[in-house]
Amino acid sequence: MSVRRVAIIGLGLLGGSIGLAVQRHLPGVATAGYDNDPAVRRRAAERALAETIHDSAADAVRGADLVILCVPVGAMEAAAREIADALEPDAIVSDVGSSKQTVAEALSKVLEGHCVIPAHPVAGTEDSGPDAGFATLFHHRWCIVTPPAGADPAQVARLVDFWEALGALVETMDPQHHDLVLAVTSHIPHLIAYTIVGTASDLEQVTRSEVIKFSAGGFRDFTRIAASDPTMWRDVFLHNRAAVLEMLDRFLADLALMRGAIQAGDGETMFELFSRTRSIRRSIVAFGQDDARPDFGRKDHVAGEEDAAPEAGAVRPGCGD
Amino acid sequence: MSVRRVAIIGLGLLGGSIGLAVQRHLPGVATAGYDNDPAVRRRAAERALAETIHDSAADAVRGADLVILCVPVGAMEAAAREIADALEPDAIVSDVGSSKQTVAEALSKVLEGHCVIPAHPVAGTEDSGPDAGFATLFHHRWCIVTPPAGADPAQVARLVDFWEALGALVETMDPQHHDLVLAVTSHIPHLIAYTIVGTASDLEQVTRSEVIKFSAGGFRDFTRIAASDPTMWRDVFLHNRAAVLEMLDRFLADLALMRGAIQAGDGETMFELFSRTRSIRRSIVAFGQDDARPDFGRKDHVAGEEDAAPEAGAVRPGCGD
Repeated sequence: MSVRRVAIIGLGLLGGSIGLAVQRHLPGVATAGYDNDPAVRRRAAERALAETIHDSAADAVRGADLVILCVPVGAMEAAAREIADALEPDAIVSDVGSSKQTVAEALSKVLEGHCVIPAHPVAGTEDSGPDAGFATLFHHRWCIVTPPAGADPAQVARLVDFWEALGALVETMDPQHHDLVLAVTSHIPHLIAYTIVGTASDLEQVTRSEVIKFSAGGFRDFTRIAASDPTMWRDVFLHNRAAVLEMLDRFLADLALMRGAIQAGDGETMFELFSRTRSIRRSIVAFGQDDARPDFGRKDHVAGEEDAAPEAGAVRPGCGD
Repeated sequence: MSVRRVAIIGLGLLGGSIGLAVQRHLPGVATAGYDNDPAVRRRAAERALAETIHDSAADAVRGADLVILCVPVGAMEAAAREIADALEPDAIVSDVGSSKQTVAEALSKVLEGHCVIPAHPVAGTEDSGPDAGFATLFHHRWCIVTPPAGADPAQVARLVDFWEALGALVETMDPQHHDLVLAVTSHIPHLIAYTIVGTASDLEQVTRSEVIKFSAGGFRDFTRIAASDPTMWRDVFLHNRAAVLEMLDRFLADLALMRGAIQAGDGETMFELFSRTRSIRRSIVAFGQDDARPDFGRKDHVAGEEDAAPEAGAVRPGCGD
C-alpha cells in the first residue's frame, strides 16, 4: 500500500467506517480525522474512528497523502476551501459523494493544481453520525472511481488499491455515467421511499397507528431507506437534478402504464411485469449484492422473544362455544 | 382451543406456514391439507405441512371445524365451490387473502348458510410455494379479521383465539377499511417496487449488469418485494382496484410535488419531508414490526466469507508510484 497517511474530513457513517476499516485492514497506515461539529469530534475520539482527531480540517490534512472528503455533496466546496492551503503537493483528494459531476467540478475549481480523483463507495445503512460507522461496511461493495480527464494513472491506481484494501470491488467510469446509474439504483429509490412514507403519514382515512401496525405487508421496507440522513439526501437531489428527473420521468411513465392496467382490469400486463422482475432479484443475490435469506434474513421477532412464542398451554381457552 | 381440526386449502407460503404453526403451537389440533397442484401436494407431504394431505379439497374439509382458504384471491370463489358440499354445518370458513371486500362477497355468495369469517394475516416473505413456509411466520405479526355484519361473536372469538395461538396479534375491522389500509401499507409498496424494477431493467443508458452491481445504493431493497408471487399480486390489484387507485393517486400527487421541488432546486421542501419520515421508522421498530438492527440486520457479505475480509498482507502492492 503506497498510501501512508489518510485524512478523513467528516466523521459520520462513511468517514467513520473508512477510519475503522483502515485501522483494521491497513494497520501501517496513519489515520487523521476532522469533523466541523465538536460533539462529533468528541464521539469520534471516544470510538477511535481515526488515530488522531484534529480541531481543524487543515491540521488533519497536513502530511496526508490521501484526503477523503466525507461530507454531504453540498458541503464539498466549503470543505475543499478549508484544506486547500494545507494540502501536501502530491496528495490525492477524493470523496465519497453520491453524485459526481458537480462534486468533480467544485473540487477541481477550488483545488486547481492538486490531484483530485472523486469516488463513490456504494455502501451504507440508514444510520448516520459518528456512531453509525463500522469496519466492514465496504466488504464486497462496489466503489466507483471517476477520474477526471487527464488524471495521472499512477494516482488513480493508488486510490483503487486503497479501496480494494478496504474490501471493496472497484469500477471506474466517467462522472456523467455514474450520475445516471446512481439515479436509478439509488436516488430514485430513495425519492420514492421518502414520498410514500410521507403519503402514508398524511392520510386522513388511515391512521398512523394502522400504518405502523400493518407495515409488515411491505411498507416497512421503504421506511428503512426513508430514515436516511436528510441533509445528505437533499444535497443529492440538488446536485444530481438532471439525471434524477430523467429517471423519475421514466419511472412515472411506467407507473402510468400500470395504473392504466389496474383501472382496465388488465391482469395480463400486470402478470407479465410481475413475472420478469423476479430474475433481477436472483441476479443481485447471485452476485453477492444482497442476503440470500428470505426477508433479508430479518430476525422477525421482538428482540429476545424468539423462544417466547406462544405454546398451546398458554393460550386462553376458546370463548366461542 | 375450541378448534379440533383445521383444513388448509392451498399449501404455499401461507398455507404451509399455518400447517406448521398449528403442529407446533396446537399439538392437539388435527391438520388436513390440499393443493390443486399434485407436485405441491407431494412436496407438502414430504415436508409434513399438514398431518394428512388429501387428493381433493372436499376430502380435506370433511370433519374440519375450521377451513382456511390459502389461495390467490382470484381463486377463492372456485375453491369455495369445491368445498361447499363437504363442509360441516358448523365449520368456520376463513381465508388469508390480501383484499377482503371482494373475497367476503364471493365466499358469502357461494357458501350461503355457512359461517364465513374472512381474515388476513399481514405476514410473508418474498418466497412462495410449498418450500417457503415456516412455523414462526405469524409471531408478533398482525392478523386482521373482518367479520361480516351479523357474524356470530362466538365464532369470531374462536377464529381470533386460533390466530393468537399461532403467535399473531389480532385486530378486527370492516373489509372496506381493511382494503384501504392494506392498499397503502402493502399494495402500493408492491406496485411501486415492481414498477421501478421493471424501469431499471429496461433502460438503454444503464445496463442490467450495472443495475445489479450498484444495487446496494437502495434499489436492492425494492427487488425483494418485486420477487413476490406474480399470480397472487395480479389478483390483489384486480380485486382491490378502487382502494389501490385512490392511494396511488395520493402518492402520485405527492411525487409530483417532490418532482417540482427537485426541478426548482427547492431544498427546503425536500429537507422538510426527509426529516419527518424518520420518526415513522422509529415507531415501526419500537412496536416490534421490524428489526432494529441497521440494514434490517442483513449479513452484508457473501455467505461464508465474513471472516475472509481482506487483510493488509493480502493486498497487492501499490502500483501507482
